[in-house]
Amino acid sequence: MADELHKGLEGVLVAESSLSYIDGDEGKLVYRGYTIEDLAENASYEEVLYLLWHGELPTRAELDAFESEMAAERDIDDAVVDLLRDLVDADEDPMNALRTAVSQLSAYEPEDDADPEDLDASLRKGRRITAKIPTILAAYDRLRRGEDVVEPREDLGHAANFLYMFTGEEPDDVAAETFDMALTLHADHGLNASTFTSMVIASTLADMYSSVTGGIGALSGSLHGGANQDVMELLVEVEESGKDPLQWVDDAIADGLRVPGWGHRVYNVKDPRAVILERKSKDLGNASGEKKWYDIAHDIEQYLIDEKNFDEKGLAPNVDFYSGTVYYQLGIPLDLYTPIFAMSRVGGWVGHVLEYQEDNRLIRPRGRYIGDESNDWTPIDER
Amino acid sequence: MADELHKGLEGVLVAESSLSYIDGDEGKLVYRGYTIEDLAENASYEEVLYLLWHGELPTRAELDAFESEMAAERDIDDAVVDLLRDLVDADEDPMNALRTAVSQLSAYEPEDDADPEDLDASLRKGRRITAKIPTILAAYDRLRRGEDVVEPREDLGHAANFLYMFTGEEPDDVAAETFDMALTLHADHGLNASTFTSMVIASTLADMYSSVTGGIGALSGSLHGGANQDVMELLVEVEESGKDPLQWVDDAIADGLRVPGWGHRVYNVKDPRAVILERKSKDLGNASGEKKWYDIAHDIEQYLIDEKNFDEKGLAPNVDFYSGTVYYQLGIPLDLYTPIFAMSRVGGWVGHVLEYQEDNRLIRPRGRYIGDESNDWTPIDER
Ligand SMILES: CC(C)(COP(=O)(O)OP(=O)(O)OC[C@H]1O[C@@H](n2cnc3c(N)ncnc32)[C@H](O)[C@@H]1OP(=O)(O)O)[C@@H](O)C(=O)NCCC(=O)NCCS
Ligand SMILES: CC(C)(COP(=O)(O)OP(=O)(O)OC[C@H]1O[C@@H](n2cnc3c(N)ncnc32)[C@H](O)[C@@H]1OP(=O)(O)O)[C@@H](O)C(=O)NCCC(=O)NCCS
Repeated sequence: MADELHKGLEGVLVAESSLSYIDGDEGKLVYRGYTIEDLAENASYEEVLYLLWHGELPTRAELDAFESEMAAERDIDDAVVDLLRDLVDADEDPMNALRTAVSQLSAYEPEDDADPEDLDASLRKGRRITAKIPTILAAYDRLRRGEDVVEPREDLGHAANFLYMFTGEEPDDVAAETFDMALTLHADHGLNASTFTSMVIASTLADMYSSVTGGIGALSGSLHGGANQDVMELLVEVEESGKDPLQWVDDAIADGLRVPGWGHRVYNVKDPRAVILERKSKDLGNASGEKKWYDIAHDIEQYLIDEKNFDEKGLAPNVDFYSGTVYYQLGIPLDLYTPIFAMSRVGGWVGHVLEYQEDNRLIRPRGRYIGDESNDWTPIDER
Repeated sequence: MADELHKGLEGVLVAESSLSYIDGDEGKLVYRGYTIEDLAENASYEEVLYLLWHGELPTRAELDAFESEMAAERDIDDAVVDLLRDLVDADEDPMNALRTAVSQLSAYEPEDDADPEDLDASLRKGRRITAKIPTILAAYDRLRRGEDVVEPREDLGHAANFLYMFTGEEPDDVAAETFDMALTLHADHGLNASTFTSMVIASTLADMYSSVTGGIGALSGSLHGGANQDVMELLVEVEESGKDPLQWVDDAIADGLRVPGWGHRVYNVKDPRAVILERKSKDLGNASGEKKWYDIAHDIEQYLIDEKNFDEKGLAPNVDFYSGTVYYQLGIPLDLYTPIFAMSRVGGWVGHVLEYQEDNRLIRPRGRYIGDESNDWTPIDER
């Protein structure tokens, strides 16, 4: 062990956790023992947050209290809106804008003096951040459209309120339920790169704002959350090329494309979340009569399996392969897909930080030094 | 290996690196083969940055070019100053303010469209961030003092220019050289928690702003960079208590104090940077006639070794134990000590990100699942 190099930390166990479990061979995912299928069908995102943060499903009274506490925390300070306006003026990308705005939120945190080891206070901070992210994203998008910011409504659920602030109109049930389900599906996923980032930050006893800000940064990368936007961009590009989609993909792979939305460190088979999102994408397409995006994605999937033998290499669609086609049908712009992933995954970041800090230890690995052993100092004019 | 739990990743090798090497038993530190003692005595911080980022010491012409490029990038956009003003109004802590402002900087990055795999562009982004951090910190501090922001000067070195912007006056040589040396000492230190945070973020192919923002978050924690402020606060508290310092420490340890500035994941002996900073602290004290802080710290060190046998437990002063007493003598407020650590360590974050991305692999460990195996769904009204 001591001398082995664990590049990427593949398979290395860094913590115990009871939040979620992935069976990568069976394509199974549970949050605290509940299957993702049960949760997607039955649980609201708020129920899932409660489950992740408090360890068990809430009773009706507990959920009511939790929902109203969160709903009451949706407002953001005017200074945050001012910052978003500046960021929009500077043409900042929404994922970066979210990272900056969440970092800024700490200035308005009522319990900013709490001891970082006070985990009850940390949970409340995490809840406040979670409550405010939809407000930030909706405000950002409206500002860049030149529209007025819409204040959050306390009487709507987390998902419905986001859509309401985003469009200015109360969403219909299908839209609200679909979006809520997408949030549930993305809420947690073991020690993925962004969650692990949050944990490393928290292990120094940095506070929740630092952890979540770091998580957003990690999620933005194209090997992680950024892939959902990449998938939809690919589908749009395929469609606009006017070429045969399969030929297009064939050429792109020959050119070295890493297909976004495919492959996963832990799954060797199709991601169970992709199965659910694929079905939802198809249903929405059937209902609206516009099945184009689902069809292209699905054809590509079949092609990569049948003709490119991706399955034999352990490559299969991950959560990002169909999520974009769902968001597209909800009218959400492509560059908000990854921020929406963050809107959900903050639940996992907060949950893992709280769990890790309960028995904290600084996360501090080592590098194998392969540089010069010893160099004599040479004054600059003799170099 | 597969089943072993590596809590804190102690001793786990996660990457190869030729940036810096720590010998924790000998108390030795080198950057690319050059000892920290040689570097502290001979190299400017800019020379160290060049060494870390480009792999070798610069010639005079290379250093001149590098210094002028960096000096030309010190300015920050007015929107950043506006944000700092808001953060000061909200009484935000400087380390959090720095995290937010650095995140915001990406909106003004001229190469924001560069491919994250274009490492030359990433290096330039890292250089721009490094150039601007002193400007952010000086502006923040002047704003909270109610003073006008001082524009950076291109004709001064990195360290001297910070002190100039901070005080409004050109620093004397002793102050500039002392501060420059402190920056050199903190520039890199293997895969410490903040550097590792930056690497995990970069491993998703997120951009440099996300990596550095995450690094700042991790550094803020009291088990990591936050300790330098904690040490000075402790010394001040000891002094103001009017009690015997050793008695004070004895009581605090009995109360469970983890002595800030002591202990390290890698060193079992005194940190070589602490040796250098201790000497500098003493020299400054002798020169000014005010040796109080050095004396208290030094007495505590002796006491912990002689009476508390800290050395036998592998506990010794780390870089943070004497750095505060140096900054104090330069007139820097306590809550800027950790941001100043970031001002320097950004060199290591950028260097490690560039090195890791040269042969990138997603950093994605696993957790050992200890939660419920399978739970049946119970509708909310039956719970
Ligand atoms: C997710 C991901 C980073 C996991 O990576 P990993 O565990 O480090 O796997 P590796 O990068 O070591 O890849 C293993 C092999 O599969 C190939 N591979 C992995 N993902 C691939 C993809 N999406 N398309 C084509 N080939 C892929 C690699 O090229 C490599 O092949 P090689 O052994 O011939 O070099 C990777 O699958 C990927 O980049 N996917 C696309 C981005 C994505 O969808 N991310 C979201 C994940 S939720
Ligand atoms: C730096 C630090 C986090 C390294 O921690 P680590 O490698 O995880 O070590 P552990 O926390 O496992 O500590 C090992 C033992 O030393 C003790 N110890 C570590 N640092 C200590 C300190 N500063 N004061 C008193 N005891 C200390 C621990 O209590 C533990 O004792 P135990 O085995 O009886 O429980 C730790 O030494 C520390 O907290 N130091 C104070 C903060 C600091 O100065 N940080 C800056 C580092 S540059």
